[in-house]
Amino acid sequence: MIFLAETYKQLIIITHQYMNLLKNLQDIVTPSRISNDPAELYCYSSDASYITGTPDYVVMPCTTTEVSEIVKLAHMHRIPITARGAGTGLAGGAVPLRGGIVLDMSRMNKLLDIDIRNLQVLVEPGLIHADLNRSLEPYGFFFPPDPGSSEMCTLGGLIANRGSGMRSVKYGTVTDYVLDLEVVMPDGTIIQTGGKVMKSASGYDLTALMVGSEGTLGVITGTRLKIHPLPKARAAVLAHFNDLEAAGNAVSAIMGRGLVPSACELMDSTTIRAVNAYDPDLNIPDCEALLLIEVDGAPCSVESDAVNVADCCKELGAFNVRIAGSESEMKELWAARRLAGAAVTRLSPGKTRVYIGEDVAVPLSVIPEMLREIRAISKKHGLTIMTYGHAGDGNLHTGMAIDTLDEKQWEVIKQAADDIHRAALLLGGTVSGEHGIGSARGMYMTEEHGSALEVMVSIKKALDPYNIMNPQKVGLE
Amino acid sequence: MIFLAETYKQLIIITHQYMNLLKNLQDIVTPSRISNDPAELYCYSSDASYITGTPDYVVMPCTTTEVSEIVKLAHMHRIPITARGAGTGLAGGAVPLRGGIVLDMSRMNKLLDIDIRNLQVLVEPGLIHADLNRSLEPYGFFFPPDPGSSEMCTLGGLIANRGSGMRSVKYGTVTDYVLDLEVVMPDGTIIQTGGKVMKSASGYDLTALMVGSEGTLGVITGTRLKIHPLPKARAAVLAHFNDLEAAGNAVSAIMGRGLVPSACELMDSTTIRAVNAYDPDLNIPDCEALLLIEVDGAPCSVESDAVNVADCCKELGAFNVRIAGSESEMKELWAARRLAGAAVTRLSPGKTRVYIGEDVAVPLSVIPEMLREIRAISKKHGLTIMTYGHAGDGNLHTGMAIDTLDEKQWEVIKQAADDIHRAALLLGGTVSGEHGIGSARGMYMTEEHGSALEVMVSIKKALDPYNIMNPQKVGLE
Repeated sequence: MIFLAETYKQLIIITHQYMNLLKNLQDIVTPSRISNDPAELYCYSSDASYITGTPDYVVMPCTTTEVSEIVKLAHMHRIPITARGAGTGLAGGAVPLRGGIVLDMSRMNKLLDIDIRNLQVLVEPGLIHADLNRSLEPYGFFFPPDPGSSEMCTLGGLIANRGSGMRSVKYGTVTDYVLDLEVVMPDGTIIQTGGKVMKSASGYDLTALMVGSEGTLGVITGTRLKIHPLPKARAAVLAHFNDLEAAGNAVSAIMGRGLVPSACELMDSTTIRAVNAYDPDLNIPDCEALLLIEVDGAPCSVESDAVNVADCCKELGAFNVRIAGSESEMKELWAARRLAGAAVTRLSPGKTRVYIGEDVAVPLSVIPEMLREIRAISKKHGLTIMTYGHAGDGNLHTGMAIDTLDEKQWEVIKQAADDIHRAALLLGGTVSGEHGIGSARGMYMTEEHGSALEVMVSIKKALDPYNIMNPQKVGLE
Repeated sequence: MIFLAETYKQLIIITHQYMNLLKNLQDIVTPSRISNDPAELYCYSSDASYITGTPDYVVMPCTTTEVSEIVKLAHMHRIPITARGAGTGLAGGAVPLRGGIVLDMSRMNKLLDIDIRNLQVLVEPGLIHADLNRSLEPYGFFFPPDPGSSEMCTLGGLIANRGSGMRSVKYGTVTDYVLDLEVVMPDGTIIQTGGKVMKSASGYDLTALMVGSEGTLGVITGTRLKIHPLPKARAAVLAHFNDLEAAGNAVSAIMGRGLVPSACELMDSTTIRAVNAYDPDLNIPDCEALLLIEVDGAPCSVESDAVNVADCCKELGAFNVRIAGSESEMKELWAARRLAGAAVTRLSPGKTRVYIGEDVAVPLSVIPEMLREIRAISKKHGLTIMTYGHAGDGNLHTGMAIDTLDEKQWEVIKQAADDIHRAALLLGGTVSGEHGIGSARGMYMTEEHGSALEVMVSIKKALDPYNIMNPQKVGLE
């Protein structure tokens, strides 16, 4: 009885604290931008992964000051804070595993400045990726990182996850484009991690530390991003291979010749089957692997580069090698690749794709080995796995679908994902090339990083001693 | 008397400790690689800056294990550890301000692996920059960051200082090329910060945190570096301007046209005078500023890019615009730029160049303002200042010379440097574009970084609680 009474007392205190919290939050932002309505909280309890966790409050800040005040409050009461962009994450990064406050950053979505003279833009974190590029196009510039979720994802989310995309083989990841971040630290302090200059050797690179830290060290409230001139021309080469090894070798060989493609995408035989089933008009020949290689730059060099790439593929045994130079031909070639993500369910009708084990990256030289490993894992578990992705930087996406109401199938897919992660690590790879660790891949951090994980934990503890910033993520606890 | 006795006792303890230290060090490395000979210690008491500080011991490790054992010893006895490459630093970064042990890393200079298939090399930190590029040339590859001290500086030093060079305008800084670092942490633990993969979204970016941390967080004992295909062709454009504003505008305008030059160097009128005095054959026309712009890539595009750059300069009022396409013509154009550093003393015969206030960087759009500020500072202090450098990324080097035996002249140069640093900060710039903070620029860290400096200090304290790693640097204390 004493125990129950104590529990009840605790409950009263907590309830009281939370009621106060609502009032306190209302002092910071207008009530219409705060919610604890269960239906709304439910919408914020997942991202595009299978991870779930319900927040206690959702708040939609409009300014950095509001974010800072909310974080100060959370800091005082030790309440978890999880920042969320568009919720397109694939590892549960924006899911509030310990409840608390979700900061929906989507209202802070202004493109504040396009500064062509300084080759940069100043944006709020909630701006949608594709919107930025649409705004830059008339100036002949673009922001090169190109996530598949471009039309939905926010720049803040992309930065927090160290995202990239198809063109990172030439243009790098988001890290290479962030000049400055405005970050609200775990105690509410607002810092600038960089500045307007194109380079600096002054102090620790806090910008790069924050990029990819998945909201565990602070909340990104603004950023300056480097932009790049749009390439004048593009061409694409499509090559079919009957041998995985040859396709993998082609990737290395192309780069070894001094060609840096702007994209180098791969689809394995299972993906080809899925895509053909999705759109029979595509009629891709049956083969072990298909490479779609894009080159960009000056019109004169693009043409010769494409021929060079095609020759290289042919020398390594490719058949049916095609070069597309016109926009319409390019579109046709890219159609198949763009369908890959959606086509996975065609191989397993009635099943749902689960994003799990979907983002490993390996050194370029072991891409064929990794593809063979995935095939063996597919066979071992009797689970169809299609593999496609950014062969140019070794980042392979796997597509697997199950009946999500069947617990046994969950067991199987989890085991298959575990095998995929471990195979990538054994080949010197990483469990995430561009989607992040979130809570879906935290268990591999020790295996992947060894003692370096302790260094990450020390940094986390030093900057966020009460562990309020997106707790239980990135394998830090 | 009691006090004296106590002091004496302390002295005995310290002496004893140091004697033990020597013995302990000898247990780790062979005695020939340890020195406490005053003459030798003197050689390690400065770098290429004006900062000095004498170590107690110099140790030359040959393996990571040796470094780890030495650091463990230092950790146990709270002895400062300063890692040193070739001592070409310009901010006192490798100078042991609190004595202790200097680790001369120059014996760990092996090029362990050239891995073209994975577009990377594995090297020890003591490898000389130019040696790496000489080894890569036969493969048609290069490591793009190109410090002026290439023939002397070590890759470890370059990484620790987040160095770059003339070609960073197109190719970025050293950060963009470090895939992995092996680091001995302040307690002797050995970590790997990255891996063989080309990209990763797994965990905090410790690689980028270590790059530019100037040995204050650990000792770099190995690294994997991304390499890049050598460009097939190069061309250079030389343009003379009678108006600073126009020269500055040309830099922005060239990039605004979608051209990314591989170098964009500037020399102001004082530098031109100095270079002409050094080598009258160069006979550069008197003008306010000269731009030397290099483009590289495919032969066909290089030609049209060079014409485009030349046209752009002409439109903005440049005169005497020349395009050099052949190797010999290119060499001739670059000769003047290469002389700039040495020529400074020609303007002030009998004086010595002091590297101070020599590395500011500002946003591209304010380069003309910064040049005018420097001119005003020169006038104010009656001190000749020549300005040259990497206009393409806003990094301006200033050259000043004094009679170093004259204390008054020291006062003047220090005041001028202070004015230069503050002017750069007021224009939204940084006190160091590529040379680092060391102890020469620590006093500007608060002004430049505000509250972000506290975040850096927290990280330093968390990872190096006894402050043994290169203490008194980067403005952290």
